[in-house]
Parts: sequence; structure tokens; C-alpha cells
Amino acid sequence: MHLMTHPEVESAPGSVGEVETRYMTLPRPLVLECGKSLEPVTIAYETYGKLSPAKDNVILVCHALSGDAHAAGTSPEATLESTRDGFRADERDQGATASLGWWDGMIGPGKAFDTDEHFVVSTNLLGGCRGTTGPSSENPETGRPYGSDFPVITVADMVRAERALLDELGIGRLKAVAGGSLGGMQALEWAAMFPSDVDHIIPIASTHALDPQGVAWNAIARNAIMADPAWQAGHYYATESRPDAGMGVARMVGHVTYLSAESMQGKFSRRLQDGDAIRYTLERAEYEVESYLKHQAAKFVKRFDANTYLYTSRALSYFDLARQYGAGSLAQAVRHFEARTLLICFSSDWLYPPENSTTLASALEANGKSVELHVISAPYGHDSFLLEEERQTPMVRQFLSS
Amino acid sequence: MHLMTHPEVESAPGSVGEVETRYMTLPRPLVLECGKSLEPVTIAYETYGKLSPAKDNVILVCHALSGDAHAAGTSPEATLESTRDGFRADERDQGATASLGWWDGMIGPGKAFDTDEHFVVSTNLLGGCRGTTGPSSENPETGRPYGSDFPVITVADMVRAERALLDELGIGRLKAVAGGSLGGMQALEWAAMFPSDVDHIIPIASTHALDPQGVAWNAIARNAIMADPAWQAGHYYATESRPDAGMGVARMVGHVTYLSAESMQGKFSRRLQDGDAIRYTLERAEYEVESYLKHQAAKFVKRFDANTYLYTSRALSYFDLARQYGAGSLAQAVRHFEARTLLICFSSDWLYPPENSTTLASALEANGKSVELHVISAPYGHDSFLLEEERQTPMVRQFLSS
Repeated sequence: MHLMTHPEVESAPGSVGEVETRYMTLPRPLVLECGKSLEPVTIAYETYGKLSPAKDNVILVCHALSGDAHAAGTSPEATLESTRDGFRADERDQGATASLGWWDGMIGPGKAFDTDEHFVVSTNLLGGCRGTTGPSSENPETGRPYGSDFPVITVADMVRAERALLDELGIGRLKAVAGGSLGGMQALEWAAMFPSDVDHIIPIASTHALDPQGVAWNAIARNAIMADPAWQAGHYYATESRPDAGMGVARMVGHVTYLSAESMQGKFSRRLQDGDAIRYTLERAEYEVESYLKHQAAKFVKRFDANTYLYTSRALSYFDLARQYGAGSLAQAVRHFEARTLLICFSSDWLYPPENSTTLASALEANGKSVELHVISAPYGHDSFLLEEERQTPMVRQFLSS
Repeated sequence: MHLMTHPEVESAPGSVGEVETRYMTLPRPLVLECGKSLEPVTIAYETYGKLSPAKDNVILVCHALSGDAHAAGTSPEATLESTRDGFRADERDQGATASLGWWDGMIGPGKAFDTDEHFVVSTNLLGGCRGTTGPSSENPETGRPYGSDFPVITVADMVRAERALLDELGIGRLKAVAGGSLGGMQALEWAAMFPSDVDHIIPIASTHALDPQGVAWNAIARNAIMADPAWQAGHYYATESRPDAGMGVARMVGHVTYLSAESMQGKFSRRLQDGDAIRYTLERAEYEVESYLKHQAAKFVKRFDANTYLYTSRALSYFDLARQYGAGSLAQAVRHFEARTLLICFSSDWLYPPENSTTLASALEANGKSVELHVISAPYGHDSFLLEEERQTPMVRQFLSS
């Protein structure tokens, strides 16, 4: 028999390979911070690596606003778009499959979260739109999607859902909780709410509380969605229109806050779409950067639910360690932390500025907690956490092995 | 007869007093950069001080995106809202009349633009919505407002309109052209287009070209307006709805870019509207900063036309001295400048960053031009040009008298 070779998609070295998303419906209602209960709650999750017999090698990774459970490897599902849509993701993913996990550069054999050693669990957060119960899920009281009847959730509620899933998987203690941005907030919330359950936390490009400017950007994004008549007070699912226009604007606002002025200068400068001449147009994209934003917005609205954006953005703005655990004092808030903390942040991240990580590190140190802080000098703004895997890798590996 | 005293609104010391806006219809069509002509063109303007017999004491001041001709003194018109709506304007104007000019702190007897010496002319820019011909004006071809049939204008067109008005007023040469932000761009355009007509230019918190991040913010704001179904492709005037929702979002985006993270921290911190407790709400403003932005947006949409916002924002983005006058080279672009230049910028202005003024000053110096650059250390971001009058005043006075 003649053996035919034919081109196949090869896994990159260090890939966890093809991973299927699984779904777990919790056996009990989830009691939320607002006082309401949610039932049923299904959680989409993936795992990478092998659980050790002692169950002492578990790392939970938590995604940011627009991610999902698919953090590493390739997915057999024909997803429309990867959630790897950070700055430069287009260039980086050219030739790669569209279904690569959002933190594939950090999770896998020999990588930062080394699946030769660790059992990595990744979930879609509560309120999400990629398999976990959220505003687009069916409300058992009405038989229709919740829409804006979904309860307003917090980062603490996301962590409660993660805790409940891990209970079902038979996992008690976590070696580490890690995540960027909103994912880092979840890591901090774990250390505050379940101090004895976590050995290490790794909040990356994150903060103990958004600055008022960040609160403002999030409010503007939500406002853009809710101002779109197609939002229909949150009950658009059964109708023919969706608030794509509003969410497109929201995404553009978010996108620019994730970049830096420097990286935008480097990538776009003031280059026009059409040679050297302006075309005297209001509606058409004239500069490359205008066209880029339109393209990103159009991609995003295809894969993301506007209500999930609203709920997740609200939770992000509410997160405030000092208010929640310290009656306004950050030092008080972290006094029960038992986890060792690794903070990584990026010099050009003006949405989650390095000063916030410094403030948090000081509060931990003032309480005699073990904390390590790295400020990586990188031009890509907040999105650096998705891009600078190579420089983060030794920091994470060393922290987890020491 | 018994003389009764009764409380009266007193003019602040140094006020030009009550000023009426006047209107001039140009005798000839205005030929625009895009090749189209506009006719009729009416220009709203105010003047402060007295024209000298030699007509050598004229200062033209140019407003920014949301201003109007009413730059100084009080207006007899019962305007709904002053255009002094920058950061802290609310606090500063408490007790003052609502109709104080937007740059009243800079224009008047003994002020930076000293009306004891100078004859100050202020116009509403071309494309405006406060008396000068713009998209809300009647299109003589249809008898209805232009809407989006108004030609796409540039900063050069604004300057052509100002030149034409001054011709009608019998004014040839200008002692100075001054303005902040988009107003500073007009000053630069004057020096480039009519080099022998201008002795001094004073661009404040301005730039020779917006950075791509600024281009992006402007594109997002325009997109928010045009994505609002009430925009109706620009022809909303005769209908019952206006794109207030979209323009509210646009204004919020603009507003945050005019402030700085530091000043927002100082003014709002993360204070909640309602004590210490969150209310688990998507739609209500929860943080003071959210409430502030909603309030500012609601005020703005009452007094400003969305199409004017679109056209002015587009002109602002198009402005590029190097592209327009130097085939891409800024040094080439300024080589015919005859005016002496005073550049003032602000340390915390990240939308019109001081680096841009430094770049422009270097280009002028490289051509042997007279240029003076002051970077004022101030926390209020781009809005500083409307707030830091006291520190700007000696710089301007000294520059004009030297």
C-alpha cells in the first residue's frame, strides 16, 4: 500500500492538543451576593493536564471580560472567531486555527502553567455567553431567556460559581488561581473569600479596584449598549434585532483602552486607507485605525452577547477589595490572605496601571504577606498580558516552583 | 426722591460686560477644499475692545469643538447652557450667570487678551450650530436643512471663512490668532495658509496633527452618533427624533479624554452615589463619576447639534500640517511661517500631549522661526486650557508685548 502524505494541522510544540469544552450543572442553587438565588447553573469548563492522586496540582485560570472556557489548545467546535482578539491577534493567528485558546501561550507542556505538572481548570465565568449560565440562558420562571431579569452579579459570585464547580469535580484546595484583568480580580477574590483554599494567586494586569477613569470607560460602554433601541430593555433575544450597533461602539471604546497611544502610533500612525489623499467623507473609514476599529467591532458582535457584556462590565466596576473586605481599607482587606501572591503588570497599561499593583503589594507587605511584583516594560498597554507570554513564563514558573 | 438700592448682577472685574452676537452674511460663495462651494455663508461673531485707527490691534480667537462665538463677557440671550462646560465649570460658575463666555478668564481688560489694548474677534466656526452656517442651516437647493448633504469641511475651510469675515470687517492683518485644541489648529492653519497676514499665533493645548489614539476617539464618537437610528443618515431635523442617545455617548467619550486619570481620581475617587452600599443595578448610575457623565451628556445634547459634532470632529481628525503643507514633512510644512509662535501645553493632557508641541517647536526652530514653548504642569488634562487662565495670562501678555 502506498502511504499518502497530506497536509494536516499540526499542534504547536507545547500544545495541549484538541480539547473539548465540558458542561456541569450544579446540584444546588447558587446564592448570590445580591441575595437572590440562581438555579439551574451550568458551567462550561475545560481541563488540561492530569489531576494528581493527591489532588494538589490544580491551577484555576480565570478569563477576562470577553474570554471563555477555551483557554488552551484547539477546539473541535467550529467557532466563528477565536476569543484571542487582542491587539496583534490577527497577525499572530494568521495561519493558525481560529479555535486556539485565548491563553494558549501560557498553558501547555513546558509553558508557564505547565500541564506536565499541573491540572489546569478553566471555566466560562458566571453571566457568560459561552456555555455558562448567563442572561442569554433560559429563565426557568418564564421559559424565555433571562435578559435583564438576570440578577446583577459580582466577581464574588463568579468565584462562588467556580468554587461550586470545583466541589463537584472533587477538588478542594487549589495550588493557584491565575488570570489577567477581570481574571486577576477573580484570583484576588479567591484569596479574600476562601483564604485557606488557595496556595498561590497570580493576578496579571489587574487591580484591587478600577480607577474612576476605568469606571467611566465601562459606564460609557454599557451606556452605548443600553442606548441602542435594539437593546429593548434587555429583552432582545426573541426579536429580530440585537444591539450590535451599541455593542460595536462599546467594543471600540474597550479596545482603545486596552492599547496604548504608543502602540497605536507604531501600528497605525496616521496612515490613510486610500493613499495620500483624504476623501472628504463622514461615514467611511478614512484612517487605518478607523478601519481597524470597525473591523474589530464587527467581529466582536458576532461572537458576544451584549447582556453578558453589561453584566460583566458592571461586576468589573463593582470589584473593590477595600470596600468588600476592609470597610474601605485595603490593608484591612488583605489581612486574612493566606496565599502567596505574584503580581505582574505592564508599564504601558493605563487602564490597570502599575501604580495599582504597587499599592496592592504594599498593602500585602504591610500585613507581612508574601508578595512578588514584576512590572514588565512593554508597549502594548493592557493587552500585554495576552502578548508578553515569553517574559511572563519564567516569572510564573519560578513562583510556582519555589 | 429716595434712591433704592437693589441687587444687580455685577460684571466681574475685568469683564467686557454684556456682548451681543452679530451675524455677517458673506457676499461671495466660499470655495471649499473639497472643491464644492457654499452659499450663502453666515458667520456669527462677537468683538471685544476697540479697533485701533491703524487696525493693527486685532486678535482672532478660535473656539474648540463645542464652543461658539460667545467667548467673553455676558450674553443678553437667555441661552440654555453656557458653553463653559469643561471640567470644574459647574463649580466655578455657581452663582455666575449661565451665559458667561467660554474664555472669559482670558479675554477682557487687563486679561491675557487685553481688551484695553486689543480688538478681539471671536467667531462661531464654519459648520457650527450657533449662528454660523452649518449642517443645520437651510440648504438653498432644497429649502430644507443640509443635514449630511453639507460638504465635508476642513480646518482650512474654517480659516477661509474667518478670512472672509475679516475682509468684510475691513481687517487685513492680524496681530494674533489664538485658540485651544481645535482653535489652536486654526491658528496654525492661519500661519500656514496666510503667512503674511499673521504676526503671532498662540496654539494652546493643540497639535499639528492628532495622534492615532485621538483619531480613534473621534471616530468612536462619530460612530456612536451615526449608529443611533435617530440620526437617520443625517436628516433628522424635520423629524421628531434626534440622535441624542448617540451624541450623549459621543460626549461622554470626549469628556473623559479631556480629563486626566489623576483629576478624575481627585474629583470622584470611587465614591458611590448612595452611601457605602452597591445597589446591584445595571441601568442606574452607581458611582459619582457615572452620574457626572450622564449629567454632562444630558446637558450637552440640549445645546449642540449632532451633525455639527460629526463635521467638526472629522475636520479635527483631518488636520495634519505635514500632509497638507509639507508632503508629509512637518519641517517642510512650517518653512513659510512668518508669525512668531507661542505654544502652551499641559503636562497631563494625554489627548494633545506635550510631546506634540515639542515636535512642532523643533520643526519651527529647525527652520529658524521664532517659537516659545511652555509646558504648564497641571492635573486637569486637556481641559486645563479652559481652567489655568492665571498661569497662561503672563505668558500670553509677555509674548504679545515683546
